Amino acid sequence: MTEHYITSSVTPLDNLDVLSPYEVARLQDKSQGGLYNLFRQCALAVLNCGSEMDSTRLVLNRFREFDVQISQKHRGVQLDLINAPAAAFVDGELIQGIHEHLFAVLRDLLYVSDKIDGCCEGLDLSGTISNQVFNTLRHANALRPHVKPNMVVCWGGHSINQVEYDYTKRVGYEMGLRGMNICTGCGPGAMKGPMKGATIAHAKQRIHDGRYVGISEPGIIAAESPNPIVNELIIMPDIERRLEAFVRLGHGFVVFPGGVGTAEEILYILGILLQQDNTEQPFPLIFTGPAGSEAYFETVDRFIRNTLGERAASCYEIVVDDAYEVAERMRVGLEAVTSYRKATGEAYHFNWQLHIPLSLQQTFEPTHANMRGLNLSRRQEDHELAAQLRCALSGIVAGNVKEPGIRAIEQHGPFELHGEPEVIEALDELLESFVSQRRMKINHDDYQPCFRLARNNRASAG
Amino acid sequence: MTEHYITSSVTPLDNLDVLSPYEVARLQDKSQGGLYNLFRQCALAVLNCGSEMDSTRLVLNRFREFDVQISQKHRGVQLDLINAPAAAFVDGELIQGIHEHLFAVLRDLLYVSDKIDGCCEGLDLSGTISNQVFNTLRHANALRPHVKPNMVVCWGGHSINQVEYDYTKRVGYEMGLRGMNICTGCGPGAMKGPMKGATIAHAKQRIHDGRYVGISEPGIIAAESPNPIVNELIIMPDIERRLEAFVRLGHGFVVFPGGVGTAEEILYILGILLQQDNTEQPFPLIFTGPAGSEAYFETVDRFIRNTLGERAASCYEIVVDDAYEVAERMRVGLEAVTSYRKATGEAYHFNWQLHIPLSLQQTFEPTHANMRGLNLSRRQEDHELAAQLRCALSGIVAGNVKEPGIRAIEQHGPFELHGEPEVIEALDELLESFVSQRRMKINHDDYQPCFRLARNNRASAG
Amino acid sequence: MTEHYITSSVTPLDNLDVLSPYEVARLQDKSQGGLYNLFRQCALAVLNCGSEMDSTRLVLNRFREFDVQISQKHRGVQLDLINAPAAAFVDGELIQGIHEHLFAVLRDLLYVSDKIDGCCEGLDLSGTISNQVFNTLRHANALRPHVKPNMVVCWGGHSINQVEYDYTKRVGYEMGLRGMNICTGCGPGAMKGPMKGATIAHAKQRIHDGRYVGISEPGIIAAESPNPIVNELIIMPDIERRLEAFVRLGHGFVVFPGGVGTAEEILYILGILLQQDNTEQPFPLIFTGPAGSEAYFETVDRFIRNTLGERAASCYEIVVDDAYEVAERMRVGLEAVTSYRKATGEAYHFNWQLHIPLSLQQTFEPTHANMRGLNLSRRQEDHELAAQLRCALSGIVAGNVKEPGIRAIEQHGPFELHGEPEVIEALDELLESFVSQRRMKINHDDYQPCFRLARNNRASAG
Amino acid sequence: MTEHYITSSVTPLDNLDVLSPYEVARLQDKSQGGLYNLFRQCALAVLNCGSEMDSTRLVLNRFREFDVQISQKHRGVQLDLINAPAAAFVDGELIQGIHEHLFAVLRDLLYVSDKIDGCCEGLDLSGTISNQVFNTLRHANALRPHVKPNMVVCWGGHSINQVEYDYTKRVGYEMGLRGMNICTGCGPGAMKGPMKGATIAHAKQRIHDGRYVGISEPGIIAAESPNPIVNELIIMPDIERRLEAFVRLGHGFVVFPGGVGTAEEILYILGILLQQDNTEQPFPLIFTGPAGSEAYFETVDRFIRNTLGERAASCYEIVVDDAYEVAERMRVGLEAVTSYRKATGEAYHFNWQLHIPLSLQQTFEPTHANMRGLNLSRRQEDHELAAQLRCALSGIVAGNVKEPGIRAIEQHGPFELHGEPEVIEALDELLESFVSQRRMKINHDDYQPCFRLARNNRASAG
Repeated sequence: MTEHYITSSVTPLDNLDVLSPYEVARLQDKSQGGLYNLFRQCALAVLNCGSEMDSTRLVLNRFREFDVQISQKHRGVQLDLINAPAAAFVDGELIQGIHEHLFAVLRDLLYVSDKIDGCCEGLDLSGTISNQVFNTLRHANALRPHVKPNMVVCWGGHSINQVEYDYTKRVGYEMGLRGMNICTGCGPGAMKGPMKGATIAHAKQRIHDGRYVGISEPGIIAAESPNPIVNELIIMPDIERRLEAFVRLGHGFVVFPGGVGTAEEILYILGILLQQDNTEQPFPLIFTGPAGSEAYFETVDRFIRNTLGERAASCYEIVVDDAYEVAERMRVGLEAVTSYRKATGEAYHFNWQLHIPLSLQQTFEPTHANMRGLNLSRRQEDHELAAQLRCALSGIVAGNVKEPGIRAIEQHGPFELHGEPEVIEALDELLESFVSQRRMKINHDDYQPCFRLARNNRASAG
Repeated sequence: MTEHYITSSVTPLDNLDVLSPYEVARLQDKSQGGLYNLFRQCALAVLNCGSEMDSTRLVLNRFREFDVQISQKHRGVQLDLINAPAAAFVDGELIQGIHEHLFAVLRDLLYVSDKIDGCCEGLDLSGTISNQVFNTLRHANALRPHVKPNMVVCWGGHSINQVEYDYTKRVGYEMGLRGMNICTGCGPGAMKGPMKGATIAHAKQRIHDGRYVGISEPGIIAAESPNPIVNELIIMPDIERRLEAFVRLGHGFVVFPGGVGTAEEILYILGILLQQDNTEQPFPLIFTGPAGSEAYFETVDRFIRNTLGERAASCYEIVVDDAYEVAERMRVGLEAVTSYRKATGEAYHFNWQLHIPLSLQQTFEPTHANMRGLNLSRRQEDHELAAQLRCALSGIVAGNVKEPGIRAIEQHGPFELHGEPEVIEALDELLESFVSQRRMKINHDDYQPCFRLARNNRASAG
Repeated sequence: MTEHYITSSVTPLDNLDVLSPYEVARLQDKSQGGLYNLFRQCALAVLNCGSEMDSTRLVLNRFREFDVQISQKHRGVQLDLINAPAAAFVDGELIQGIHEHLFAVLRDLLYVSDKIDGCCEGLDLSGTISNQVFNTLRHANALRPHVKPNMVVCWGGHSINQVEYDYTKRVGYEMGLRGMNICTGCGPGAMKGPMKGATIAHAKQRIHDGRYVGISEPGIIAAESPNPIVNELIIMPDIERRLEAFVRLGHGFVVFPGGVGTAEEILYILGILLQQDNTEQPFPLIFTGPAGSEAYFETVDRFIRNTLGERAASCYEIVVDDAYEVAERMRVGLEAVTSYRKATGEAYHFNWQLHIPLSLQQTFEPTHANMRGLNLSRRQEDHELAAQLRCALSGIVAGNVKEPGIRAIEQHGPFELHGEPEVIEALDELLESFVSQRRMKINHDDYQPCFRLARNNRASAG
Repeated sequence: MTEHYITSSVTPLDNLDVLSPYEVARLQDKSQGGLYNLFRQCALAVLNCGSEMDSTRLVLNRFREFDVQISQKHRGVQLDLINAPAAAFVDGELIQGIHEHLFAVLRDLLYVSDKIDGCCEGLDLSGTISNQVFNTLRHANALRPHVKPNMVVCWGGHSINQVEYDYTKRVGYEMGLRGMNICTGCGPGAMKGPMKGATIAHAKQRIHDGRYVGISEPGIIAAESPNPIVNELIIMPDIERRLEAFVRLGHGFVVFPGGVGTAEEILYILGILLQQDNTEQPFPLIFTGPAGSEAYFETVDRFIRNTLGERAASCYEIVVDDAYEVAERMRVGLEAVTSYRKATGEAYHFNWQLHIPLSLQQTFEPTHANMRGLNLSRRQEDHELAAQLRCALSGIVAGNVKEPGIRAIEQHGPFELHGEPEVIEALDELLESFVSQRRMKINHDDYQPCFRLARNNRASAG
């Protein structure tokens, strides 16, 4: 089957076919404040799920003839898809999972643009952001009260090798056999494998309401198209709210090998777990990969010990090539979470207790100036350094796969980073290891580092 | 079983147990802007469903020891009901329908207070109000797309006699046999009978998802406690949005004998149907009662013909003592509605096409000044006069059963009404007829008219 | 609406549309061994549910033009109903409940004729009969394991007065509020009222799977057409298996005023409860009626005390005009049943422990010879006398409302009964009381006693 | 995790927890006529699903300490599993799919032993057998009326190589995307792969009621343990009824590479399709395998052309290494089936129209005498020769993997086969090819042919 384009119309699922003419008008609005452009971009990402392209720009270019028009017809809403990727269809019919994703995108874009700002009079900014995360998840029906903690967030690379991919399936399978659900960033690779394994396991356990939650955001979705197994797609407004959604919704966390993005997520979590307020909470966090992939976590572990120290390293466990063991440890970890929530009266469906500092909630705009302004020194609280390191990595991911980041690098050259020499060196080593492990891009030959360590402060420090 | 009080705790139904601490705090807030007082009053109304009291003040006085406290316990929300009406319980357990109502109240109070104001940037006031009605109904899951029009709104008195009550049951039964659903103001009498009849008919037709929709508002709910058959309770923010919800959600309308409130609702509808934009729409509207109750609709019909004229009278049909005929005509009417919506591309679930003028959407505050300011003259468009007459009657209902109205009358004496003599006379006759038919209050002997026709403008007219 | 006839075709519900050509042929078979005649008669009974006729002969005569043809068409089975009672239809569509009943009849006639005989190699006759009852109920999906005992069998007359009927609704309502389900003989009167009341109560309690079980048999169904609220209709092969189904399926028993048939059912139960093996089992049995109907149970109670004695009278409670009290006592009784079943390891869904003697399981053919052969004397075990009295009453019911019985009386004159004078006198008094209370037939003026007490054995006893 | 044994108790799923004490007694009965031994053997097979052993004898020997006891406890039935294979459990809990299988076995063993014999008075033997197949499938709830033909039977080997296995997954995936369901013999290999692929595809298409039907029989189940994805396990009483169940329930047929058993199934189908009565029916039949496995179907195709001729070869299509194409052709084929069933009024859920001759319905006992008695000559109708060839292969399968067959070979030496030299030669070549392709046993080195071609009739033919 040669890849080509399909033009087709789809009508919404029932529960999303209750739009007001006002909402339809906003989705049709091509002006600056309108939702049309954002919706078109996300819709394309959803339809492009079979593809291996992981660059937003490539995707947008490849399907520049794609269009989506929303109209009110026959007593309801209709989406007209024009020149859509053919791989989203089977015999001319849109795959049902992708169909659902289209309308989940629509639901969340409308909700976020409409409701978020007015939220929570009287709360401070941090509280407001957390409530927005809560409200968006609740509106997407992702919060299910009274269900025993069983949501395992899986992080890891979207372009891992076959052995690593098969291993993520095995881990997903073992966790699925134990009734666990899977939540990922909803792209391919480590975000798809665990769901596939869990799907087979859930079939064997007759779990018909298995949850495969994918949490994305408009800036990343085109590069990490949701796979159609995802049966709850949620589009958070930005990357920070997406990360907060992961840690407040999930009960356990498994990290597979990945690239810089994965390391960034690890630092985000450490930035939280190192907070004084959070030290008592059980928070199952397992790094794991198959035999042959040990290098990734050795690199990450060394980087953490060198920069954040032993306390940070005690927040996670590393398991090599043992899916059964990962699932067993996660089961034990989830039981501890359950006991703790019971004892402290916390909800099962949303971890309000977790303290997330405002610095980790706020959008880090990876401009050259902001990158230059980071303080990468150990002469601050551990969790503060973790947050700074996370921003550094975030900027590097942006420079690699996000459209504006790529363009900024093209215009202004690589980012410059300042800080304590040992920290910068550790960062340097981390990134060089990733490059040599070919963990930075799908197409390894084209890889160009998007950052430069500002060595001058090494001199000034000396 | 002697009536007494019960103190008990209830936990929410699953889908309502996802409140944020911020929302709980607002429900606990006893200050002016907080929701506590409103929630307590509505909760009491819901719990008092077995009672025959139809005065808010009486209810509040009878259960002045009642309290409801909302707390976050055991990973969820809990309502502590203190000194609640015992009739709401069976063997110490809250009746499940009432249980649902409590949390429907909570859902709508939170939603309305939080979301309504920020709605719909760029729309005019009328459009904003309609969108608020739409959003509130959608949030309450009351809009079901693609279901063939089958929602019949039943209006009529809450304190009708046994023969009239039995007749409303028969009409509900015949409509239920034909698959129709029922929507009422959710109190006793004509608001309960059709639901009871439809429940039996739905059981015979194996309709397991029969809808018994009750639409109330905080100002009236205490006087018209929802009956527990209601399986979708919706609390609109005020009486005008409640009326708009009825006419946009309903597909057909049956009016049973009632009192001034019922006449007010009839005028509200006529104020809409007499609009030029609405004349083409099929809008099934049947006035009906059992043998022996003909006087009520004769009075109303005469009043309409005398004030609004023949065109207004052609908007409705009157059927006497023939439940089968009512159901058959409604069936035919609903088919016309279906055809029209299909032909015009209008949604089945919400009648956006109906033009409702701003004057009928805005709250009429029944102060003595506002009542005095009404223009009850035929020298204006029919639909404008209908709106003015509706305000007059609205004020009179307030003076009879709503707390602030009763108090205002006690302080300032009866309302004064101005207008064309023939219209005032018709109004006078209407009200006198209602009083003589004992349609103005449950306790007929205590009845005191709360209005006075300002005859002076008769002279000035002469 | 004048009553007339409708000719229509209906297709089965899905789960009954899997008949083999062999089964269709048997339903079409008009020969002696075929099922056509039996099916036609039962189908007519089901369709005639709105009628007040309680004589099989009258019904068959009234609708002698009725026919039902079963054919295999369009990949399934189709029933062609010819000249069916119009009251079974609404706007040309068969009421769904009646639709289900038609195919329940078909299901049970096929099952019983096919499967019953081969059952249970190695068991004795009594065990075989009990297993047939079990198998028929299981095949009809009437046995639901692990559900806490909540099935209340309601017995009583099908032609009671309005006050009695309203009372049965109130009792059903109070029991329904407490989560109880209703099982009756599925005709009108006391068999319909409790279901109607429970339907409303279940709606208020949001019990969506309320069970309204009707158990009938081919010989009685035409005289007691199932009301369409019945959502599980079961056709047992004969009256004895029907009675056994009641007592093994039910957990509690309420008897309303009735006629001879009701008295017969009371004697059947006493014949069981007086067995030595059954004395330890809790078996809630309440006789109840509204104020004004006390006479019925006074008569029955006196008859029981005079013939079977005090031990028999201790098996039941009598409650007058207090629906709330009946429901409360039943609730307590069901809790005792639950505890006992738990303690003894008995199933909740079928009372295997109840010992039913073969004499109560076997069909009593009410011929003149068999009636003459009964031993109505107290010089035997209580439970044996109860069984004999039950046969006597069974014959009398047959002579009143069942076709062959009526014909036999017409040919051979009234039945003759032998026994101890005191017992015969008590029986005489019972029947005279029933006649004077007008409890023997709908049309009281036509009543002719169908039995004669053979007084000669009074002399021989003397 | 080292393999070991687990002792555990399981209680039935609700709908299977309604057994009579009589039925429990039969399952406990260890005598000749009792069900205990058969149930133990099948239960072990179900629990042994993870294993690679494909010899009944090996399995029984490996788990000779296994026992299963059925008891009536706590108001229901309980199975006590003693020394059960640990792989059937996760953290001490039986995998739910296996749990269901245990009770499906119990259901079918009870049904078949109880109900089959009494079936269908008046029908001839062939009709009786077809009705037994129908009744067993209906009782297992496997017949779903009015569902558009979508059940694809997949046949093929249980011990295929990894490339072949992955290919069966791809084919299952493409068919699952098109809404097709899968039915297999329920063991590993080609019986598991298509289900796994379809499971993932169904997840993407949000098909929540995907059917993975496994049809087995007591003689083969131990060698081909059902995989837990099977969500409808049906145990037919013998191999011929199992084959009839496949062809009457299935709408399309895909054959993957296998061994002698697979060839036998192909001959069974050809024996049917070559019947004059069946030539008009569309009957999608596709042989397919991945690149590298062409030899299997070349061998089979050559054998068919040499023995049964071109007409037989026109009954199937061969597709090499193109899962998409297989699914597309099957989709077209199923549409033809749908049209034909519609046009001829045949049920969608059971192919009554297919004529199956008695010779293919009757059990072929593969004794040495019966094998010797086969007529393997082309001087008979094609379909008759196909039936004879199928018996020959059936005997050879028995001699390879079924316990009594293996024992008979050990005692009496290889089977002798008689017939026309060219046919015998073709058979010889077929079997030698299978051996050289290593398609006859899992453990290739141990392979000993269990048959010998009786060459003497070559002389007599000459």
